[in-house]
Amino acid sequence: MTFKTFTLAIVALIVGAGSARADAQTLAAPDPVHLKANADALRDQALKGSIAYPFVRDLTTEIGERLAGSDAEHRAAQWAVARLKAMGFQNVHIESFPVPGWTRGEERAELISPSRQRLAVTSLGNAGSTPPEGLEAPVALFHTYADMLAQPVGALSGKIVVVTQPMVRAQDGSGYGALAVMRFLGAAEAQKRGAVAYLVRSLSTSDSRLPHTGATNFPPGMAPIPAGALSVPDAEQLDRLSVDPGLNGQPLRMRLVLTPTFKPGATADTVVADIVGRERPDEVVLIGGHLDSWDLATGAIDDGAGAAITTAAAKLILDMSKAPRRTVRLALFGAEEINFAGPAFAAARSVDEQSHYVIAAECDFGAEPVYAIALPGAFAQTAYGAMLAEAIAPLPAYVDRAPARGGGEDIEPLSPHVPLASLQQDGTHYFDIHHSADDTLDKIDASRIDKAVAAWVAFTYLAADSDVNFRAKPSSP
Amino acid sequence: MTFKTFTLAIVALIVGAGSARADAQTLAAPDPVHLKANADALRDQALKGSIAYPFVRDLTTEIGERLAGSDAEHRAAQWAVARLKAMGFQNVHIESFPVPGWTRGEERAELISPSRQRLAVTSLGNAGSTPPEGLEAPVALFHTYADMLAQPVGALSGKIVVVTQPMVRAQDGSGYGALAVMRFLGAAEAQKRGAVAYLVRSLSTSDSRLPHTGATNFPPGMAPIPAGALSVPDAEQLDRLSVDPGLNGQPLRMRLVLTPTFKPGATADTVVADIVGRERPDEVVLIGGHLDSWDLATGAIDDGAGAAITTAAAKLILDMSKAPRRTVRLALFGAEEINFAGPAFAAARSVDEQSHYVIAAECDFGAEPVYAIALPGAFAQTAYGAMLAEAIAPLPAYVDRAPARGGGEDIEPLSPHVPLASLQQDGTHYFDIHHSADDTLDKIDASRIDKAVAAWVAFTYLAADSDVNFRAKPSSP
Repeated sequence: MTFKTFTLAIVALIVGAGSARADAQTLAAPDPVHLKANADALRDQALKGSIAYPFVRDLTTEIGERLAGSDAEHRAAQWAVARLKAMGFQNVHIESFPVPGWTRGEERAELISPSRQRLAVTSLGNAGSTPPEGLEAPVALFHTYADMLAQPVGALSGKIVVVTQPMVRAQDGSGYGALAVMRFLGAAEAQKRGAVAYLVRSLSTSDSRLPHTGATNFPPGMAPIPAGALSVPDAEQLDRLSVDPGLNGQPLRMRLVLTPTFKPGATADTVVADIVGRERPDEVVLIGGHLDSWDLATGAIDDGAGAAITTAAAKLILDMSKAPRRTVRLALFGAEEINFAGPAFAAARSVDEQSHYVIAAECDFGAEPVYAIALPGAFAQTAYGAMLAEAIAPLPAYVDRAPARGGGEDIEPLSPHVPLASLQQDGTHYFDIHHSADDTLDKIDASRIDKAVAAWVAFTYLAADSDVNFRAKPSSP
Repeated sequence: MTFKTFTLAIVALIVGAGSARADAQTLAAPDPVHLKANADALRDQALKGSIAYPFVRDLTTEIGERLAGSDAEHRAAQWAVARLKAMGFQNVHIESFPVPGWTRGEERAELISPSRQRLAVTSLGNAGSTPPEGLEAPVALFHTYADMLAQPVGALSGKIVVVTQPMVRAQDGSGYGALAVMRFLGAAEAQKRGAVAYLVRSLSTSDSRLPHTGATNFPPGMAPIPAGALSVPDAEQLDRLSVDPGLNGQPLRMRLVLTPTFKPGATADTVVADIVGRERPDEVVLIGGHLDSWDLATGAIDDGAGAAITTAAAKLILDMSKAPRRTVRLALFGAEEINFAGPAFAAARSVDEQSHYVIAAECDFGAEPVYAIALPGAFAQTAYGAMLAEAIAPLPAYVDRAPARGGGEDIEPLSPHVPLASLQQDGTHYFDIHHSADDTLDKIDASRIDKAVAAWVAFTYLAADSDVNFRAKPSSP
């Protein structure tokens, strides 16, 4: 079947609404041929570029790093408000909320025994501080996280606990999902077992000497111990040192200086902007990325890119001759990295208000093309899914037969009141630089980011200008 | 022509000594077939591995970084003495010599205007210090080194001079050669023009956020200004900031903290070991690498690899049933990075002694395979050159028709008394990590380093067990 033949077949399928193959509840807007033509035109316009790359370029150049709750993060929000207003968006405003104001301090690690060697280390977000002069302690090294968890309470008393389990590269980022607990909960688990500090091999697929930060978490009431990430080569160096026969079993001993602080009264800002729907303005298609970044770099792929991609997709819809039937709401979140923006956004909206959100999707996985879109439930197997599949097929991208399993930290608190979609970008190389000092603009290819915009605009437009209802139970086509 | 036919043709050429096609003065030893068979066997033994990788692994793991003149560099020399003695080398000893004892201090750079942004920076070796609290000054940015040199004396008064010219990737490292002057002499040139500090875009082919250090040089009597290297992404960020229309021409202003010191009375150690020749022990084939490294990493490719490759090549010859006719001398130099080891090594040897050196070659370009060998003068076009070409052809590698243009910092001071050869390793990716914190063991592939050993052992053996005279004027074959 040629591509043209396939197109005609799909259009025939969609136009055939009311037939046994179409699902009345999930049917697209009255004129599916028109919808599809608009989606195609928006997709092709996106591929011509000129919106997303300048957005992320200017954000990362003019503002730089944007740690949640920092002055820079507030400047980024003001910058975004000005930019979105200049673009012509409606209802542009800031929603502020409190954050812990965690701020990085000094960070140094040095092996004392069996030989003096400096190690590349960085604090984890939310972690505690060593004394200003640091702490020195023997190292308890574990090659897997499970090995550390197998230690009884008290067994790691007085130790700097190091876990060196490597992360696996996977296109969809599942290698990160499988191991993130090692960073997110590992410090608290080590502390329960007596550790005075916790270091984890960076959640990274690169062999760079740059360590990768990220949030860790402590239960309420626990005074957090110092915790950090070692670069991959340093973790591997410790692995070798722990078994090197030339060292005759000399124990590992380390000096660690990590002195982050908390800034009481800090707040972060989420920027919200609308394209008000022409027929059903209270029905909202929510898309967005996050403006905050870790402080080690300018947050180009995490998540200047996602903010840029969704802004570009919305801007292309804004520039159409008439607004879509429903409202497109763009949210540029202010504290994704410490997981404060999503709960604040959801808390600011009643369940009733959320029940009018058509769907929500967040773009937070770099600047590479979208290769698949996962819809709620079984919506891949509907006329709507087929139309979307047709629109993104030339990129190339497909509609995943599996349902979306989540939509991003900032929108997941809206679930279950709001259906979520997931636009899957190619993350094969994402964790090479994610959360490290390497997350800079030069890692973004201007033509590849436009392919992501093309998928986002097709998805967003078809949700906003149709009457698809993702809460309905779809019937099989 | 098949490979086997070619082999037979070359052997016939070599055996045909005394014919018009052979050159009596450069003729290989009396039994070229035997020589060639030994070279092939050594090459094949090298490919089986097990010497080079463990050497560089243990050096970089047990000692770590090895800055010239530091305690670690002395420990590395003691480590090498013990290792070489255990391997069975003869005359293993240390030759010490004075060095400036330059030691890195704090290093931080922050853009103050048009927005506060931290920049990844590292001091250049031999550079001066800012006050402990740093210095703050306007930036004078030049996109090329020539643009900076075009400024008259005094024109850069009070400025932090930044030069952002990018380095070009090239297999043979010539992109580095073309631009190294920007780092090596740029600080002194900027100082002459009034600069208070000098920053250069890292001589790097990578887009890593890690800056690349390296030596800079000041004329005698000049008190050095602070000088450093910016990472490539930071240099590109400054390039963008200097032209960003959204910033309305706000000037660049920077705060810089670079506080290196000098340690009076420091010394460095070169380790020397021999395989004493069985017939002409005073005729010496000198090979080696350098033990010192920059302090940002463990110096795996620069130059633990070169020390390992040449040690492995020598060890394979040492393990032959009888020693070669001439002495093979292995030198593991102690201060290549600041260019003190070569002059010290040459100064310790009289011109008469040097006149008995057959040839010298240094291995200091990473851990990748040798793809070409350049011999002195026109030796590629001799029976000796053809025999060497034949021995390395299967790797694959060739004898370059062009003469060697140099042999490495540590042996060039022996010229013109000693002929030099150059074994060219593939440096396509060498400058991605050279002189940066990324120069760690994980960047070395154990099977690829063995291909380099194979070329080195063939070259070294054929020079040591033949009577080739690289000082003679070769006739065309």
